[in-house]
Amino acid sequence: MPQFMDVHHNMAGLTEEGLKAAHDADLAIQGDENVIFKQAWADPEAGVVYCLSEAPSQEAVQRIHERAGHPADEIHAVPFAV
Amino acid sequence: MPQFMDVHHNMAGLTEEGLKAAHDADLAIQGDENVIFKQAWADPEAGVVYCLSEAPSQEAVQRIHERAGHPADEIHAVPFAV
Repeated sequence: MPQFMDVHHNMAGLTEEGLKAAHDADLAIQGDENVIFKQAWADPEAGVVYCLSEAPSQEAVQRIHERAGHPADEIHAVPFAV
Repeated sequence: MPQFMDVHHNMAGLTEEGLKAAHDADLAIQGDENVIFKQAWADPEAGVVYCLSEAPSQEAVQRIHERAGHPADEIHAVPFAV
């Protein structure tokens, strides 16, 4: 399946627990869209979060993020990885 | 060591070979600054590349990227990851 990197802005002050809770919320429903959220990284000072996933489409990624309460600001197909 | 996600813009049209060559250029000299470039992902349409690394500082990450010929446009410490 294609890989995607999505980016959330305006998350300044996010805690480690907050990141885990958001990721768990995605994991709980990701199966509904055949999305697999693999990893996420957060810079709490700049308020940016990066999420790596495998999914049928970027729309599927966004639908899961929206239902989990944190829509992405950017979603990039990343066909090349090393 | 702290983790960093750095972002390169203006890379539209980047090929898979181009990403690999850039990553290899980093790997070749990363030891000079105790940086470990772990993974990189590219969206050739939007021209954006994401690089995940472990490093003593974001300045060390940028010095390696600069010497390799592709300075980052953003470098984020990402202390939280899941």
